[in-house]
Amino acid sequence: MASIFTKIIHREIPAYIVAESDSCIAFLDIFPLAEGHTLVVPKVETDLIFDLTPNQLTELSLFAQKVGKAIHKVFPYKRPAIAVIGLEVPHAHIHIVPINFASELSFSNEKLKLSQERLTEIAESIQKEYLKLT
Amino acid sequence: MASIFTKIIHREIPAYIVAESDSCIAFLDIFPLAEGHTLVVPKVETDLIFDLTPNQLTELSLFAQKVGKAIHKVFPYKRPAIAVIGLEVPHAHIHIVPINFASELSFSNEKLKLSQERLTEIAESIQKEYLKLT
Repeated sequence: MASIFTKIIHREIPAYIVAESDSCIAFLDIFPLAEGHTLVVPKVETDLIFDLTPNQLTELSLFAQKVGKAIHKVFPYKRPAIAVIGLEVPHAHIHIVPINFASELSFSNEKLKLSQERLTEIAESIQKEYLKLT
Repeated sequence: MASIFTKIIHREIPAYIVAESDSCIAFLDIFPLAEGHTLVVPKVETDLIFDLTPNQLTELSLFAQKVGKAIHKVFPYKRPAIAVIGLEVPHAHIHIVPINFASELSFSNEKLKLSQERLTEIAESIQKEYLKLT
C-alpha cells in the first residue's frame, strides 16, 4: 500500500507543498512543533533513511539544504533544526523545525494548531524563498 | 578559537572516536541520551550545517550514513534517529541516537551516566562495524 507521503507525491491527498525536485518533495507538517515545520521526503519509498542509496541520500541532503535555507530566510531569528525519527511513517523523511531552544525539537511537545490561512501563508513564503535558490 | 570538536579532531582533547574520514569524524557523545549516541562532525568549522558547501554536505551525509549503519548493527533493536540542533557548539554536528520511541530523542531528557569501560566497549563495537563497511 502506498504510504501517506506517496499519496501526497501523487496528489491523491492535499498538502502544503513548499518545494519539489525530480527525486524529492517538501511540505508543511500539519501537526507542527513550530511555524515552518516542514517534512522533506525522497520520492522513493524507503523505510530507513540510511537504506537510501548513496545517490538518493545525496539528492535528499542537497534538496533538504535548499529547503532549510528557504525556511531560515522566512524565520531568520530561529535555527532550522533537523530530526529524523523514523518511527511513525515507514517512508524516510526529514523534519526541519525552526527553533530557539533544543527543548522545542521534542516530539512529545504539544503540536501547534494553525489555521489553513496561516499554513498557506507559510508554505507560500517558503516556496518563494526556495525558488530564489534554484 | 578552535571549537571543542576541532580540538578532538586535532587530538588535543580525548574522545571515544568511532570513525574518521578525510573530511569528517565521529565520536561518542559523553552525555548520551542513549547507549550508542554519536556525534558526526565535518572537520571544517561551520556553524550552520546548511552553510556547508554542497560537496561538504554530501561527504558529511555519506559518512553519517556509514556511521548510522554501524550503530544500527551494534543496536539492531533500535532505530538510529538523527538530530541537528545547532545551538550548543558553533561547529555543525549531527547527533545519531538509537531509539525506540520519539520521546527518547528529546534533549531535555536526563543524560545517561556511562562508565569509561562501557563507553570504550561501545566505541570499539561501532568502530568494528564501521570498518566492515569501508
